[in-house]
Amino acid sequence: MDRIYFDNAATTPLDPLVLESMMPYLTEKFGNPSSIYSYGRETRMAIENARKSVAKILNARPAEIFFTSGGTESSNTAINAAVYDLSCKRIITSPLEHHATLHCAEYINKIGIVEISYVKILSNGHIDITDLERLLEESKEKCLVTLMHANNEIGNITDIEAVGNLCKKYNAIFHSDTVQTVGHYNFDLRKLPVHFITGASHKFHGPKGVGILYINENIKIHPFINGGSQERNMRAGTENLYGIVGFAKALELATANHETDREYISNIKSYMQKKLRGNIANVYFNGDYDGKSLYTVLSVAFPKTEKSEMLLFNLDINNICASGGSACSSGADAGSHVIRAISNDLNQITVRFSFSKYNTKEEVDLVVEKLKGMI
Amino acid sequence: MDRIYFDNAATTPLDPLVLESMMPYLTEKFGNPSSIYSYGRETRMAIENARKSVAKILNARPAEIFFTSGGTESSNTAINAAVYDLSCKRIITSPLEHHATLHCAEYINKIGIVEISYVKILSNGHIDITDLERLLEESKEKCLVTLMHANNEIGNITDIEAVGNLCKKYNAIFHSDTVQTVGHYNFDLRKLPVHFITGASHKFHGPKGVGILYINENIKIHPFINGGSQERNMRAGTENLYGIVGFAKALELATANHETDREYISNIKSYMQKKLRGNIANVYFNGDYDGKSLYTVLSVAFPKTEKSEMLLFNLDINNICASGGSACSSGADAGSHVIRAISNDLNQITVRFSFSKYNTKEEVDLVVEKLKGMI
Ligand SMILES: Cc1ncc(COP(=O)(O)O)c(C=O)c1O
Ligand SMILES: Cc1ncc(COP(=O)(O)O)c(C=O)c1O
Repeated sequence: MDRIYFDNAATTPLDPLVLESMMPYLTEKFGNPSSIYSYGRETRMAIENARKSVAKILNARPAEIFFTSGGTESSNTAINAAVYDLSCKRIITSPLEHHATLHCAEYINKIGIVEISYVKILSNGHIDITDLERLLEESKEKCLVTLMHANNEIGNITDIEAVGNLCKKYNAIFHSDTVQTVGHYNFDLRKLPVHFITGASHKFHGPKGVGILYINENIKIHPFINGGSQERNMRAGTENLYGIVGFAKALELATANHETDREYISNIKSYMQKKLRGNIANVYFNGDYDGKSLYTVLSVAFPKTEKSEMLLFNLDINNICASGGSACSSGADAGSHVIRAISNDLNQITVRFSFSKYNTKEEVDLVVEKLKGMI
Repeated sequence: MDRIYFDNAATTPLDPLVLESMMPYLTEKFGNPSSIYSYGRETRMAIENARKSVAKILNARPAEIFFTSGGTESSNTAINAAVYDLSCKRIITSPLEHHATLHCAEYINKIGIVEISYVKILSNGHIDITDLERLLEESKEKCLVTLMHANNEIGNITDIEAVGNLCKKYNAIFHSDTVQTVGHYNFDLRKLPVHFITGASHKFHGPKGVGILYINENIKIHPFINGGSQERNMRAGTENLYGIVGFAKALELATANHETDREYISNIKSYMQKKLRGNIANVYFNGDYDGKSLYTVLSVAFPKTEKSEMLLFNLDINNICASGGSACSSGADAGSHVIRAISNDLNQITVRFSFSKYNTKEEVDLVVEKLKGMI
């Protein structure tokens, strides 16, 4: 059986058109974008055009877009800046955040510089916004609120406009990890009340090793990575030229075909959901799967049996790629911190299926057929 | 006139064989290396093989090699770790270091966590090792010594074995920025008394956006970028798969042809030096150019005249790529901190020419011919 790739929330294949846009910079156009001669200015231009394009799509200003090595670095930069440059003394976050947020915040907390509060989670996996307001209200210190736009494991989408408005009211800094939504949703950063958002192009058919950090023009921070004056003194290090060009191209393609892709992928998700319900007894779904949820992610809870405990293993044998928890921590730790935080059902086996424009309903049919035998 | 690229210390063209090794990972082999299915294990294997290969070439252990986004991130990681995890309270460095070191150390100093001392520089651009010992001897606090192996602007090479031995004697942590020498010199890290070294493959015909940090196995530090458990919990973020594969391939190629390339490039450097002396009055060279010096870099001081002030501009018009200072800061600031630190000759115009295996003596002839007209 051909491989079925249902793990697009972990990473996606590079779109051949994106690779094509990167090729000139992987071959003849290699000049250092910081050099003064015209040959370097040519690559500098490529970077600045990429920045303009990304800014335009997100409706931000080019001066608000910074290229980094990925979503993780972007979140680390934002969180450190909020603490070290913007005087935040308390971090308000949620137990469902990606480790890029949690481990960064916990580290700063551990070295004794900030306090952390975790906002309450409702049973459908959404944050309790009343609890968030309570935390903000009670805090005597300036707060950083760091809450993700969409959860990479269960798919839940947070109303970040509402969160941003609360932050405004209480004069808090707001960082949102938007790694699962940049390239999949429309953003209007002139209107959205947010200080920092993040993106990583390998989540939308762009290259790995490159990300963005949006920094609202009204705030001034120091670089997290210090050195040369690249990225207008905000992120040092010789630029990942092809990565940056590829990031912009991938975002352009994702935006151009957004409506079609979205509808196509949504259909696959709901098709799979129905198929599973129709074919597997006692299956259920984590999070707000048919409400405010990513159209790309379906987190499935299978009943625990001797057989289903081998589910990921058996999927693998059948050449089906899907995740237990987030890719970034799988293998290493026992189970997902997200599932643990929203469920006390020890009898579920969780599998996250995540889709892209390259998937088909036929693949869903095949996967569900196989799953029937594995439960 | 075809472009002549004499700026290889800024960045180098990607070797076509390196690109070839990256291509499978830019196309069909895109699986997330942290995923649990075999398709991800395949890319994980590619990363671990890259690590083994790099470790072998540097005579380190695979567990001592960590992939990062570049030389700058690597240096930032080492310097932060020395301060936050290894209790260094004083940083001893030199005014000739790359900004990746200086700006990082200065930032930590500015927020009040460490003191900085700068070791004295001799007139030939080498550090005064007696002064270094004096600083170490006098310090009541644990020190981080951060001194580069080879200077990217003037080419001077420091005897890092001697520095490392001093650090050992005074129980200091030793970080060496080896970005200009990894891929150009042989390393034996089992013997070299050093805690951290750094590398960036775009300096030796590998990809941009990827680097390494060597961390001696005897020290334990925290990650600088926190998040997922990639790089054995030492550097979070989805791996730059093709970058890592390309880094290893570039280092393999650089090592395989090291003797030949070194001799070839050395000859170009000394040829240019002689040609310049023979053709341009009052020209001289910065640093220890024919002593302990990179075979890839020649820093030339031209007499200042009305005409020569336009030198870089005129080189550019003639399609010749060379640098004023380091690429990372050119454009932005007025002149080089390195040249300022070693010279009080305000009447010199400095141009750094830096060579690779792709350059020829014919190119040197052409450049010197052009230079004659520009002085
Ligand atoms: C000596 C030295 N250190 C550090 C760096 C920084 O490396 P990167 O720009 O790849 O981060 C460079 C080059 O830019 C360098 O020449
Ligand atoms: C929600 C979320 N945040 C952050 C990240 C980290 O991004 P990266 O691994 O590209 O650094 C990921 C994916 O890995 C993610 O899904």
